[in-house]
Amino acid sequence: LGWFGRPSSHSSANLQNVRMKLLNEMKAGNIRTYLQNWTLHPHLAGTEMNLQLAQQIHSQWKNWGLDSVELVHYDVLLSYPNESSPNYISIMDEHENEIFNTSLAEPVPPGYENIKGLVAPFNAYSPQGTPMGDLVYVNYARTQDFFQLERELDINCTGKIVIARYGKIFRGNKVLNSMKAGAKGIILFSDPMDYCAPGVRSYPNGWNLPEDGVQRGNVLNLNGAGDPLTPGYPANEYAFRLDEGVGLPKIPVHPISYRDAERLLRHMGGILAPIQWKGQLNVSYNIGPVTNTVMKLIIKCYSNQILVSVTDRYVILGGHRDSWVFGGIDPMTGAAGVHEVVRSAGKLMKEGWRPRRTMVFASWDAEEYGLLGSTEWAEDNVKLLQERGVAYINADSAIEGNYTLRVDCTPLLYQLVYNITKEIPSPDDGYEKKSLYQSWYEKDPWLVHSDAPRIRKLGSGSDFEAYFQRLGIASGRVRYTKNKNTATYSSYPVYHSIYETFELVERFYDPSFRKLLTVAQIRGGLVYEIADSTIIPFDCRDYAKALKHYADVIYDQAQKYQLHLDKHQVSFASLFSAVENFTRVAKDFHKRLETIDITNPLTVRIMNDQIMLLERSFIDPLGLPGRPFYRHIIFAPSSHNKYAGESFPGIYDALFDIANVQDQDKAWQEVKRQIAVASFTVQAAAGTLEEVA
Amino acid sequence: LGWFGRPSSHSSANLQNVRMKLLNEMKAGNIRTYLQNWTLHPHLAGTEMNLQLAQQIHSQWKNWGLDSVELVHYDVLLSYPNESSPNYISIMDEHENEIFNTSLAEPVPPGYENIKGLVAPFNAYSPQGTPMGDLVYVNYARTQDFFQLERELDINCTGKIVIARYGKIFRGNKVLNSMKAGAKGIILFSDPMDYCAPGVRSYPNGWNLPEDGVQRGNVLNLNGAGDPLTPGYPANEYAFRLDEGVGLPKIPVHPISYRDAERLLRHMGGILAPIQWKGQLNVSYNIGPVTNTVMKLIIKCYSNQILVSVTDRYVILGGHRDSWVFGGIDPMTGAAGVHEVVRSAGKLMKEGWRPRRTMVFASWDAEEYGLLGSTEWAEDNVKLLQERGVAYINADSAIEGNYTLRVDCTPLLYQLVYNITKEIPSPDDGYEKKSLYQSWYEKDPWLVHSDAPRIRKLGSGSDFEAYFQRLGIASGRVRYTKNKNTATYSSYPVYHSIYETFELVERFYDPSFRKLLTVAQIRGGLVYEIADSTIIPFDCRDYAKALKHYADVIYDQAQKYQLHLDKHQVSFASLFSAVENFTRVAKDFHKRLETIDITNPLTVRIMNDQIMLLERSFIDPLGLPGRPFYRHIIFAPSSHNKYAGESFPGIYDALFDIANVQDQDKAWQEVKRQIAVASFTVQAAAGTLEEVA
Repeated sequence: LGWFGRPSSHSSANLQNVRMKLLNEMKAGNIRTYLQNWTLHPHLAGTEMNLQLAQQIHSQWKNWGLDSVELVHYDVLLSYPNESSPNYISIMDEHENEIFNTSLAEPVPPGYENIKGLVAPFNAYSPQGTPMGDLVYVNYARTQDFFQLERELDINCTGKIVIARYGKIFRGNKVLNSMKAGAKGIILFSDPMDYCAPGVRSYPNGWNLPEDGVQRGNVLNLNGAGDPLTPGYPANEYAFRLDEGVGLPKIPVHPISYRDAERLLRHMGGILAPIQWKGQLNVSYNIGPVTNTVMKLIIKCYSNQILVSVTDRYVILGGHRDSWVFGGIDPMTGAAGVHEVVRSAGKLMKEGWRPRRTMVFASWDAEEYGLLGSTEWAEDNVKLLQERGVAYINADSAIEGNYTLRVDCTPLLYQLVYNITKEIPSPDDGYEKKSLYQSWYEKDPWLVHSDAPRIRKLGSGSDFEAYFQRLGIASGRVRYTKNKNTATYSSYPVYHSIYETFELVERFYDPSFRKLLTVAQIRGGLVYEIADSTIIPFDCRDYAKALKHYADVIYDQAQKYQLHLDKHQVSFASLFSAVENFTRVAKDFHKRLETIDITNPLTVRIMNDQIMLLERSFIDPLGLPGRPFYRHIIFAPSSHNKYAGESFPGIYDALFDIANVQDQDKAWQEVKRQIAVASFTVQAAAGTLEEVA
Repeated sequence: LGWFGRPSSHSSANLQNVRMKLLNEMKAGNIRTYLQNWTLHPHLAGTEMNLQLAQQIHSQWKNWGLDSVELVHYDVLLSYPNESSPNYISIMDEHENEIFNTSLAEPVPPGYENIKGLVAPFNAYSPQGTPMGDLVYVNYARTQDFFQLERELDINCTGKIVIARYGKIFRGNKVLNSMKAGAKGIILFSDPMDYCAPGVRSYPNGWNLPEDGVQRGNVLNLNGAGDPLTPGYPANEYAFRLDEGVGLPKIPVHPISYRDAERLLRHMGGILAPIQWKGQLNVSYNIGPVTNTVMKLIIKCYSNQILVSVTDRYVILGGHRDSWVFGGIDPMTGAAGVHEVVRSAGKLMKEGWRPRRTMVFASWDAEEYGLLGSTEWAEDNVKLLQERGVAYINADSAIEGNYTLRVDCTPLLYQLVYNITKEIPSPDDGYEKKSLYQSWYEKDPWLVHSDAPRIRKLGSGSDFEAYFQRLGIASGRVRYTKNKNTATYSSYPVYHSIYETFELVERFYDPSFRKLLTVAQIRGGLVYEIADSTIIPFDCRDYAKALKHYADVIYDQAQKYQLHLDKHQVSFASLFSAVENFTRVAKDFHKRLETIDITNPLTVRIMNDQIMLLERSFIDPLGLPGRPFYRHIIFAPSSHNKYAGESFPGIYDALFDIANVQDQDKAWQEVKRQIAVASFTVQAAAGTLEEVA
C-alpha cells in the first residue's frame, strides 16, 4: 500500500508492458468457467455452501502465487426465513378465513429442479408478526410519495398495511418511510413497468422477470454501521453486542411477485392513483384504503447469529461472494472477474514482477445482508486503512445491461478511468476497432463536467461504502449497463430472483463474455495502475472542478428560497471562496508534480502522501447529522435512497428540511451550520495540498 | 514536521553538537529580562495589552530568523466583569439590607499602584444573577463531598448557595457538581490550608497568599470543545455559532479571599463539618444550612465576543501568553522560556543549521478562558496536524515550587525525558555537579513503572489538551514543583491573584533564574531531539509497560465487585491479551530499528511514520461517552477533576457508575462495552507497529 511503497526501477515503457501483460493474460473463457461453476448452487451469506466457495477461492489464490491469503471470521447478525413455516400474505373474508394466499416460492428454472438450499423469497431482517388491516398503495414508498398521500390525497397510513412497488430507491428506505408514516406492515412487489423491458420475453425465454419471480433483499437502514449489533467495531470474539441492533425494521415486510400483487391490488378500493403512480398490471391502481376484504401479512422469518467467512487480507479490489440464490449476475459476474485478475497477477508474480504497492484482493460475505463482511473487515483494520489505504475498487455485478459502460467514482479517478478505457477495445457491436472510451463517449456523453463520457457520484449499495463514506479512501466502481434513456425498468428485471442464473448471462447478457472481460480488465487495470505507478495517478484538478459544480448546484437549489436567504442571512460566499482556493492549490500541485525529481524517493513519497490523504481530508470525525458512519462531507448516500450519491449532503438535507419542518428558524440555522462545515472542510482539504518544504 | 522530514547528513556527533549549542546559548538572564518586561502590565486574554505583546513577540521571532511567523485571529466567547458595577457577596439582615459586603478588589502590591487594566477577582463565564438563600459549606465540592453530604450528613443542597474551598480539583468541576446538587449559586474561596505554606509569610514578604488575595479562573466544563460557541470547528469569520454555548455554568459563581470567607463562615449554623473538611480559618466550619442571616450573591459579569490573537504557524512547542493579571508565574515563566528557545534556535539557523523536521513555536491567547487559542488553532489545522503532527510540548508556568522536576507525558517520551535530564546539571542546592536526573530521582523516585524518577499521566488544564486528548499527538509537559510529600497547599498560594508578580519569582521562587532556565532547556531539548533526530526518539516499549500497569490497576479496581463480575460475565481477558500482543510487537519494533539501514531514507520514513502514528492509533473517532472531544482511549482528563489524568477512562467511568446508578444491569453492560472498546483499540494500535514489507 501507499506508504510502504518500494522504490522501483520500472521505466515507463516497462510499466506499460506489465499492464499489457496483466490485461492480456485475462481470458473471457476463464470468466465464463468461473461464473458457470459458481452459479450451480446458491451461495447465501453465512451458509455452508458459501464457506466452501470461500475455501476454494482461498486455495486457488494461494496456488496462483499471492503472498498470503487469509480467511477472516466475524460473527454477525443474519436472518433467514423459516423453512418449515414459510412467509406469505393472505386475503381474508369477514370471518378471517384466508381466501387467497401468495405463493411460497418461485417456480424453479429448468435444469435447477434438484438443487438444494434455495432460499424462499423474503426480506432479510423483517421482524416476525402477523399484522392485519386495510391496504394502501403507496407507489414507490418514497419520501415524496408519502408527502403526496398525506398532503394532496389526504390519506393517512397509520395502522395500515402498505403495498409499494420496488424500484427508484433502496427498499430499506421504503420500509423506513412506511414506518414513519405509521404503517404496521409493508408488502413489496415488482411491477412489470419496473422489471420488464418492452418486447422482451420472460426468463428462460428472455431476460424479463417472470410473473412469479420475486426480488429478495435486505430492508435494513444501517447507514454504514455494518453488523447491526456491533456498530463501529468489528464483530469479533470479544466484541460488545447491543441488545437491540441498529437499522432493523420494526414492522413485518414481505416481497411478492407481480402475479400475486395483481391479485391483491384487484381488491383495492378508494380513489384512483395519480397517473404517475400507475404501473403495468391489469388493475386500475386504486390507492385504498377502502377494500372489500382485509389483508393479513404473515411473516415468520427468524433471525440468527452465525459465522461469516471473509477471504483475504488487505484492501484494493473487493467484491462480494454471497448471493440470494444462484447469483448469476449478482455478484458472480463480478467475483469471476476478480478471480481472473488474481490469476493473471499471480502469473506475472511468478515471472518475478512485484507491484510497487501491495495489491489486496477481497471476497466479501454477507453483502446482501447490509455490506456486513466488508464493513466488519474495515472496522477491524481501521487504523491500518486510514493510515495506509490508497484506493478501493469495487467488484460487484459486472453487468446490468449490455449497452455501455457505467462508472461511479471519486473525481480523483476520472482521468485514470478515461486513460484506461482509451486503451481497451470496445466490446460493443458496431464499434469494432474503436476504443471503449469512444463507444462509451458516444453512447453516454457527459454534458456537465467536461467533454467526456459521463461518470456518476458514489452513493452506497455495495461494499465500497465503509471505505469511501466512512474512511475516505478514494474509491470507484465500474460495470456494464443498460441504455438509461430508453430502459425504464429498475436495475435488471430478474434482480435478486431465482432466475439469476448462468444461462441468463450466457444467453441474454453477454454470450461472448467479452463485456465481462472488459469490466474485469478495467477493474484490474485501475488496481494495477494505482498500485504500480511511481506517482499515484490521481488528478485533484477534477476534484476542484467537481466541487465547483456541486457548489453551483446547491446554490441554485437554495435560490428557490430567495427571500428566506436574505431574511436569515444565508450566504454561500465562504463555500465558493473555499472552492476557489482549492482550485488554485490543485493546479499548483500538478504543476509541481511535473517538475519534481522522481528519482528522489522521499520527494515522491511526500507528494504521494498528499494525494493519498486528500480524500481522507474530506472526512469529518463528527459525521453527518444523525449518521455518524457517513463522514464524507462532499459525498454521502442520499438520505432518501442510499443507492444514489448526494453531493454536499449536509447542506442538501438541511435545505430539504426547510419545506418540511415546523421550526423554520431552526431549520435555517442548520443550513447555515452545514454551509460553514462544508466551507471549512474544503478549505482544510486545500491546505493539505499546499507545497511542503 | 514528521512526514516531511528531510534526509540530513548530520552525524551523531554533529547532532549532539547542535543540541549543546542550542541549550548553551540559552541564558537565565534573558529569561529574567523577558519575565520582567512581560509582567509589568496585565495581559488578560483578548485585551489590547495582550495583542501588543503578541505583536512584540511576532516581530522578535521574525528578527531572530524564524522562516515565518504568523498572527492568527479567532473570534471566541470571552467574559469580563463589569467595571462600573462589580461583583460581590452580601450578608443581609431580615429586611434584606446588605449588612456585609465582600471586597471588590485585592489591595494592589507595592510598586503596581498606578498600573491600569487590573481585572477585579471574578470567575469567567459566570452568568449574571443575584441569587439569595441559605449557605451550605461543601468542602472542595468534589463528587465524593456531595455524596457525603447527601448520604451521610443528610443535607440537601437544592435551592441553596454553596460555599466551597478551592483546591484538589478543577474549579469548573466544582461548579458542575454544585449545579447537579441543585445549588443556585456558588462561592469559591482560598482556605489558608490550601493556599498558605506553614512558616511562610504572605506576599510581598513571602510567597503565601495574602488574606485579601483572590484566585481568578474560568468555571467552564468544555470537555475539549474550545470556543464554547463553535465546538469542533475553528471560530473563524464564517463559523456557525451556537445560540447556547457548551460548558457554560448555569448558576452564578464568585471567588473571594479567605478574610471574606471567614466573615461568611462565621455566620454558619447547622452541624459541624467532618474533621477532614476543616481548613485553617478561625471558624468552627459548620456546614449549615441553618444560618442567622441570608446570603446574597450579586454577580454582574458580562460576556462578550472579542478578537483573540494567536501568534504563529505550526505546532511543537506551545504555551499561552494571556494572564489573569500580571502573570508573574502563570504563564510568563513559561512564555519567557519559549522566547529564549526561539532566540537560541534563530541564532543557530543564522549559522546555517536547519532541523530535520519543522519546529513550530506557538504563543496562545485565552488559555485561562478554557484553552481557547490553542484549541481553535488545532481545529483550524486539524487535517495537517493529524497527518503530520509528531509531538506537542507544552510550555505553561515553568515553576510552582522549587523542590524538583515534575513531568507529565505520554509513555513514548519517558526515555527521552530521562536522557535529556541526565545531560542537564541539577539547579538544586546541594546537587552541584550532579545531573538533574539524579536530584529528581532522589527527590521523587517512581515506585511503580521502573527504577527512575516519577512521571505522571497527562490530564488537562493546559494547552496540550486538544493535541493529545483530541488528536492523539504525542505530548508532554515539564515544570519545577514543590515537595508533594510535605506541601499540602494547592498549586501555589498566590495562584491567579494579583500577587503573581515578577518580584514573587525573583525573590522567592528562583532568584538565580536557573530553575526557569533548566525547565526551558528541557522543553527546548525535547523539541530539538524530536525535530532533528534521524529516528524519532520515541520508545513504544514504555507504552507497553504502562498499558500493562493500567490494565492491572483497572482490573484491581473491578475486583471489589467480585460477585457482580461473575454474575454479569465481565472478563478482562481480551484486554490483557491485547496488552500482551502490544508488548510483543513493541519489542520487535525496537529490535528491527536496531538493524535497519538508516541511510535509506524510505526505510527510515516508514518506521518513523509508524512511531509517529502510534499515539494517533489510540484515538477513537466515536470519542468517550458524552465527551466527543476526548477521544484517546488510554488517557483522558478525569471526569471528576480535569487537571488529573485517568487511564482507561472509559472503563474507569463505567465502573464508577456501578456504585452510583439505579440500573445495575445497564451499568455492567457499559463496563463490558468499554472493556471491548479498550481491547480493540490496544489490539489495533499493536497492528500498526507490525513489520511492513
